[in-house]
Amino acid sequence: MKKIDGGITAAQGIRAAGIHAGIKAADTKDMTLIVTDTPAAAAGVFTKNSVTAAPVILCREHLSDGQAQAVIVNSGNANACTGEVGMANARRMASATAEQLDIDAELVLVSSTGVIGQQLPMDKIENGIQTAAEALSTEGGSDAAEGIMTTDTHPKSIAIEIEIDDAPVRIGGIAKGSGMIAPNMATMLSYLTTDARINAKTLQIALNRVVDDTYNLLTVDTDRSTNDTVIILATGCAENADIVEANGENYETFCEGLQFVCTELVKMLARDGEGATKLVEVVVKRAKNREDAEKAARAVAESPLVKTAIFANDANWGRIMMAIGKSGAEFDPYQVDVWLADYQLVKDGMDSGYDEDKATALFAEDPVRITIDLCAGDTKITMWTCDYSYDYIRINADYRT
Amino acid sequence: MKKIDGGITAAQGIRAAGIHAGIKAADTKDMTLIVTDTPAAAAGVFTKNSVTAAPVILCREHLSDGQAQAVIVNSGNANACTGEVGMANARRMASATAEQLDIDAELVLVSSTGVIGQQLPMDKIENGIQTAAEALSTEGGSDAAEGIMTTDTHPKSIAIEIEIDDAPVRIGGIAKGSGMIAPNMATMLSYLTTDARINAKTLQIALNRVVDDTYNLLTVDTDRSTNDTVIILATGCAENADIVEANGENYETFCEGLQFVCTELVKMLARDGEGATKLVEVVVKRAKNREDAEKAARAVAESPLVKTAIFANDANWGRIMMAIGKSGAEFDPYQVDVWLADYQLVKDGMDSGYDEDKATALFAEDPVRITIDLCAGDTKITMWTCDYSYDYIRINADYRT
Repeated sequence: MKKIDGGITAAQGIRAAGIHAGIKAADTKDMTLIVTDTPAAAAGVFTKNSVTAAPVILCREHLSDGQAQAVIVNSGNANACTGEVGMANARRMASATAEQLDIDAELVLVSSTGVIGQQLPMDKIENGIQTAAEALSTEGGSDAAEGIMTTDTHPKSIAIEIEIDDAPVRIGGIAKGSGMIAPNMATMLSYLTTDARINAKTLQIALNRVVDDTYNLLTVDTDRSTNDTVIILATGCAENADIVEANGENYETFCEGLQFVCTELVKMLARDGEGATKLVEVVVKRAKNREDAEKAARAVAESPLVKTAIFANDANWGRIMMAIGKSGAEFDPYQVDVWLADYQLVKDGMDSGYDEDKATALFAEDPVRITIDLCAGDTKITMWTCDYSYDYIRINADYRT
Repeated sequence: MKKIDGGITAAQGIRAAGIHAGIKAADTKDMTLIVTDTPAAAAGVFTKNSVTAAPVILCREHLSDGQAQAVIVNSGNANACTGEVGMANARRMASATAEQLDIDAELVLVSSTGVIGQQLPMDKIENGIQTAAEALSTEGGSDAAEGIMTTDTHPKSIAIEIEIDDAPVRIGGIAKGSGMIAPNMATMLSYLTTDARINAKTLQIALNRVVDDTYNLLTVDTDRSTNDTVIILATGCAENADIVEANGENYETFCEGLQFVCTELVKMLARDGEGATKLVEVVVKRAKNREDAEKAARAVAESPLVKTAIFANDANWGRIMMAIGKSGAEFDPYQVDVWLADYQLVKDGMDSGYDEDKATALFAEDPVRITIDLCAGDTKITMWTCDYSYDYIRINADYRT
């Protein structure tokens, strides 16, 4: 496996563009178009929020046949809580894109991200779609990464090359955060492409598995968006033998590559969480089972008191004990050990006698890694989050007004 | 029902003191002692955090007979995650208090609040207990309210007089917050006294009922302390006919008074939440059932995105829709209405066409009241919280270091 350039357009058979359509007031990119040369195998995972944005509803509909040829995304407006007009606008985004590309509208997937509750400016959207279609390029990966940003401070993009049957296969991805990132598909939009030969059904199974271990273990705040979307398109332009079932060596190699791409994107998202000053990895080990491991890790990763202590470089392990205690996970408080990086803070549920200065120094490491040994089983999990700083408040207090 | 002076010492048969024992570095009160003239009927509700502080374990033990005559509380150190030494120290606090008062140690309840994971400075504690015992007074209510504070910016105290059987009955209370306040008994310590004649069993039932509708519906952050405690002592010095069962008019009158006292204390706690600039009431109505009502209200009251928007006086109703959507409560997103005070922001899940300036002005009202009509049943609930400001981060980033 090696990292390569090109991001979302690294895989063969993909073109993309990111342009300024004028949905955002600022002169920044606010629209992304990703297109495959021919219809691709496609899979998606979407928000579990019951207040679901119109484009998510449309994506589920258009993905039902496992095929797609284009993804059109706007930032600046989420097209959520917008009723029938919003649904019609999402359909219009798909059909306007289909007209530009001369393909069937059912092959177009649609995403929107930004403010909730306002109708899309459809004139700007339609003009933008035309501009984006004209700008499509096999070199468009980095522009595409920019077009989906909202409060992100920088674009997130990656690509790798792996070998399946000695054939080079590429997987690339882009993602945007950075608030409303929480349990089970956060505000994240993420688009993945590959030239692997893999059928839609197997692609969906692989995506579900990888999302569970990456995007669903990312939490910035505890909020969960109305628009979360992860979509993968597989062009089949590579030379590997078709992957038609969710087992076997080739399938595992593909999943491993996909897992790497998604993990890297998730780390980029956490590190760029709203107001974040550092990436934090919370590792829970020897939990009774996956559910308990996730409960304990999530309680720590989502605790405002833990996150403000990390911002302050304060090895306040009492807050970690408080967080796992409230999580509902089963463990004996007086058997718990806690480490900051490889330095033990808590032994058998109490102060290990660690040195405060040494602990403080460890907060400069990247990522800050907190490991909690529950001594209650043998399940291990890693969650990703960031600290809580003054800027989290500033960004979210100022965002809409 | 009328409000009266005296706080925790308003009820007959109660003396209290709040003194500086030297546990906190600053020259502020850090110890409170509450004593009844004779053994009182006593009841308590404690943290559900599985990492339970030593004094909480001791209180459960000492309350098993429904009797108590004293409560000793220190602030500045939580005596949590302190192992066997911590448990011995909690017992020593009880026995030192018992010695000073010449009563049985089993009649003494103990609380500690402050930093987790450090052993109590027992010399200072024992000297403090002696000083507190000497300072006991029927006028000691306000000192007692000060002695339990940690990051609170002001003491919280209230007393009322009600009539049961034409006999005046007093109920008073003090409480401290103000971070780690969350689901199901937050870092709150709260002590209630009454001179009502009521047996311990009925007192416990009344306390459970009132705590469920008050303290357990208070949330400042999502964290839950290792030390949460609500204790009530009933001296029986009033002239009402004994309340011996959890039903009947006298019992209901008592519960009503207790509910009022606890609601007022909860509002004081929310308003003084760490970094809070305003008290927020989240009302969910027409929920399918109590569970759904609480889920939806809690999701809104705990959403960092909603709380930062309230801090910014931003009627960002999209975040409210997002929060109820992630809550798991059952409802039709396109039947939801949302009000700020009496001004409708959302009609049928969409923008009501409200005026932004008018909405912004409503954030100056106290409390800020957000009402969400789920249109899914007929259960109503009120939760109390506060906004998230820069100061929440400052206080929690600086607290221990």
